[in-house]
Amino acid sequence: MKNNNEQELMEQKRSIAAIATPVGEGGIAVIRVSGKDAFEKVNAVFRGKDLTQVPSHTVHFGKIVDENNLPVDEVLATVFKSPRSYTGENTVEISCHGGVLVTQKVLETILETGVKAAEAGEFTHRAFLNGKMDLDQAEAVADIIHAKSIKAVDAAHQQLEGRLGQHIKQFRQQIIDATAMVELELDFIEEDVEFANKEQLMKLLVDVSAEINALLETYETGRLVKDGVKTVLIGRPNAGKSTLLNTLVGSDRAIVTDIAGTTRDTIDVDWNYEGLLFKLIDTAGLRETDDIVEAEGVKRSQKAFEQADLVVYLKDLSHSFTPQEREEIKTFQQRAGETPFILIGTKADIEQKTEWRTEFDLKISALSGDAINTLKATLKERALENKHYDASSLLVTSSRHRDALKKAEEQVQAAINGLKLGMTGDFLSIDLRAALNELGSITGEITNEHILDSIFSRFCIGK
Amino acid sequence: MKNNNEQELMEQKRSIAAIATPVGEGGIAVIRVSGKDAFEKVNAVFRGKDLTQVPSHTVHFGKIVDENNLPVDEVLATVFKSPRSYTGENTVEISCHGGVLVTQKVLETILETGVKAAEAGEFTHRAFLNGKMDLDQAEAVADIIHAKSIKAVDAAHQQLEGRLGQHIKQFRQQIIDATAMVELELDFIEEDVEFANKEQLMKLLVDVSAEINALLETYETGRLVKDGVKTVLIGRPNAGKSTLLNTLVGSDRAIVTDIAGTTRDTIDVDWNYEGLLFKLIDTAGLRETDDIVEAEGVKRSQKAFEQADLVVYLKDLSHSFTPQEREEIKTFQQRAGETPFILIGTKADIEQKTEWRTEFDLKISALSGDAINTLKATLKERALENKHYDASSLLVTSSRHRDALKKAEEQVQAAINGLKLGMTGDFLSIDLRAALNELGSITGEITNEHILDSIFSRFCIGK
Repeated sequence: MKNNNEQELMEQKRSIAAIATPVGEGGIAVIRVSGKDAFEKVNAVFRGKDLTQVPSHTVHFGKIVDENNLPVDEVLATVFKSPRSYTGENTVEISCHGGVLVTQKVLETILETGVKAAEAGEFTHRAFLNGKMDLDQAEAVADIIHAKSIKAVDAAHQQLEGRLGQHIKQFRQQIIDATAMVELELDFIEEDVEFANKEQLMKLLVDVSAEINALLETYETGRLVKDGVKTVLIGRPNAGKSTLLNTLVGSDRAIVTDIAGTTRDTIDVDWNYEGLLFKLIDTAGLRETDDIVEAEGVKRSQKAFEQADLVVYLKDLSHSFTPQEREEIKTFQQRAGETPFILIGTKADIEQKTEWRTEFDLKISALSGDAINTLKATLKERALENKHYDASSLLVTSSRHRDALKKAEEQVQAAINGLKLGMTGDFLSIDLRAALNELGSITGEITNEHILDSIFSRFCIGK
Repeated sequence: MKNNNEQELMEQKRSIAAIATPVGEGGIAVIRVSGKDAFEKVNAVFRGKDLTQVPSHTVHFGKIVDENNLPVDEVLATVFKSPRSYTGENTVEISCHGGVLVTQKVLETILETGVKAAEAGEFTHRAFLNGKMDLDQAEAVADIIHAKSIKAVDAAHQQLEGRLGQHIKQFRQQIIDATAMVELELDFIEEDVEFANKEQLMKLLVDVSAEINALLETYETGRLVKDGVKTVLIGRPNAGKSTLLNTLVGSDRAIVTDIAGTTRDTIDVDWNYEGLLFKLIDTAGLRETDDIVEAEGVKRSQKAFEQADLVVYLKDLSHSFTPQEREEIKTFQQRAGETPFILIGTKADIEQKTEWRTEFDLKISALSGDAINTLKATLKERALENKHYDASSLLVTSSRHRDALKKAEEQVQAAINGLKLGMTGDFLSIDLRAALNELGSITGEITNEHILDSIFSRFCIGK
C-alpha cells in the first residue's frame, strides 16, 4: 500500500503539459508545461536559449524540434520560475502557430520527453495545492471561463479577487474566538468556573449568525447572475410567444442556442440584456387537448413554469377574453407565488377586442417593436425585484458555497440555543467546530479528494 | 486625393488589436496589440507595471480595467519592442482567462483606447511590409495554420525558413548577371561591340532555365502534400467502396469530415496516413440507368474521376465478371492515362467467382481487415510514384508560385531563343527583366495591393 501511495505521489509531482488555448484554427496557440523539471523537459526539445539559465518572466524565440532534430514549429517560450507562476511550480508557456495539427504535434513532442498529459483543471488544482489560491478562487476561474453574461464575469471576478474568502476568514476568526472562550471554560471545568462573560459570547455568536445570513441572502441574486434568469413565456397558442422571443433575441444579436426538445418540447434561447443573462423558454401553447403528444407538451410547459424565475403570460389582445382564460390567468398568478409574474397584451397593433385592459403590465406589438424597450427594462426590473443587487457587492453564486454557509449558520444557531439552555462548553464546542469545518470547506482549508475531483472536473483541459 | 492617401496612410499606421487564439472556451486566450503606440494604448487600461518602461521580451502580471476602473480581467502582458517582434512594431500580447465573453470584453476595452480592430492577416501583412519576412514566408504562416497533414506542416516550415526564397534570390542573381552582360553590350551598341562572351551568356541562361524547371517539377508533389491526394473510389454498386472507406478512416482515427452532397452526390472524407492527407471520394455506383437522379450521380462520379490524383477501382470478387465490366475497367484504365490506377478485388473472404485474377493489384476483405495495411502502403506508394518526394527537399506547394516560376522560365526561354536568333540586347533585356519581375512577385520584392489583399485575406483575424 505504501508503495502504491508513493507511486501516486510521484505521479502527482510529475510535470504536466496541455494545450491551454481553445481548439481550432487561430493565429496563436499556447501549450503550458508545469512542474519541477518543466525547464529541463522543454529544454530537451527547444532550440534557442538554455531555458534553465534565463530569468523568470522572460520570453525567448526558438524552435521545438522532433527526435530527428527536424523543426516542429517556431515558437516563443515564456519562463515562469517557482513560486512566481500560475501553479506555483516552474512553468513554461510555449506560444506556437495556431493550427490544429501543428499545436498537437508540439504537445506530443513535449509529452515524449516524459511529461504527463494534464487532466482537466490540473494546473489550477496544483495552484490550489501549492497555496497560490483558495478553493473558492479556483472555482471563480472556471466561472469566468464559462460565464455567459458580463454580470456573471463581474461576480466571478469579485470571487477571484478573494472577497468571498475574506468574509469566510472573518467568520472563521469570530467563531474561533467564541470557541476559545468556550474551551477556556472547559479547561477549568473541574473548578466549576462559569463563562468569563456569557453575554459577550452570545453577542459574538448572534453577530456572526447575522453576518452569515446576510451573505446567504445574496445567493438568490448570485444564482440569477451566474445561471441566468429562467424566463418562461406562457399563453394560449398563437398568443405571440415565439414572435416575442425572436424580437428580443434578434434585436440584441444575442448568442442564440436552440436546444430543440430532446428532453422537453420547450425551446430555450439565451438572451443577454444589460449584462444579465435571460434563459428565455418558449412553451407549447396552453390548451385542453386529447392529443397525447400535445398533452405532454402542455405538461412540460407546466414544469417549466414551476422552475421559472420570471413568468411572462402573453394574451392576444385582438381576441376577446374567454371566462376560462380569465380563470387560467388568475390560477397562474396565484401559483406563481413569489415568482415575478408579468401579464402582457400582444398584437396591440391589431384592433383590440379585449376589454380587461387595466390588469395588463404592458401592451406590445412584437412585430412592430412597439414598447419592446420598455418590456426589456421591465423584464430586468421584475427579475431582480426584492433582490439585493448592486454591481459592486459580493454575491454568493455557487450552490456549494450556499450549502456550506447554510450548514455553518445552523451550527452557530445550535450553539446559540445550547448557550440559552445552559449547556456545557463541550457541547457548544462540537457545534462551533462543525461550523468551522463547513466554512473551511468553502476556501478549501478543510476538504477531501472527492470534493476536489468534482470541482476540478468542471474545468477544461489546459486550465 | 493626396488628403485621402494621407488619411489612408495614417489609418495603416494606427495600432491594431485582435484576439489571436481560436474562438471558444479554453484556459487562456491571447489578445495581440501592435503599432507605434501599442505600449501607451495598453498602459491606459492596464494596472500593473508601466509597460512603456519595462524591457523587451518580459512578462508582467496586472489587470485590465474598464472606464470605471473596474477589473475586466487579471492578465499577463508580454512586451515586445520594435523591431524585435512578429510585426516589427511595438507589440503587447495580453494573456487573459479563456472565456468567450471575458476575452471579447478585454479586446473591446483595448479598442476603446483608439486602437483599430485588426483585419484578417493584418499582423502578418505588417510583418511583411516591415521587412520581417518575405511574401512566400508570410504565405507559409497561413499554410502551417491551415495544414491538414504533418507533411503539409513540414513543407510549410521549409518555406517559412526561407528555403524557397533562397532559390528565388539565386535565380534572380543569375538573371541579373545575364542582364548586366546584355546591357553592357547595349551601352556600346554604337561602337558595334559584340557580346563579350555570347557563349558564357547562353550557358548562364540555360543553367537558370534548368534550375527553375527542376524546382517547378516539385509542384506536383507539393500540391499533393498541401491539398491532399484526391483518391476516387469507383466500381459497380455494392462493390464495397463505402466499406473500404470506413475501414481506412476508422482504423486510423482520422479527422472525418462528411461533406454530404450539396454540390455533388459524392462523399469526401479526409484520411491521414503516415503524414500524408488523402481526400477519399466515395462515388455513386456505376451503372447504366434511366433514373435521372441516379444518372446525375454517375455523371458526378465521372467528374470526380477526371479530377483524381489516384483512382481505385473496386471489383466484388464474389460475383463473376461480365463482359461489360471488363470493357469498363479497360476504358477507365485508358482514360486514367498518367493518373495512377489501382484495381482491387473486394470481398476476398467470400467464395470467389471471378476468374480474371491476375490483373488485380490487390485482393482485400474490407470487413475482416485482410491486407488493409498493404493497401494503405500501396495507396501511398502509387500516389507518389514518379513524383520527386524526399522529406527534407523543398517543395513548391502554391499555384501562385508555380505560375510565377513558369512565366519566369518562359521569359528566360524567350531570351535563349532570341540569343540564338541573334537578336539585339535591348530585346533580350526586355525578356530578362520580365523574368525578374515574375520571380520578384514570389518573395514580394515586386508586388501590388491586389495580390497582397488576396494573399492576406486567406489568413484568420489575429494573425
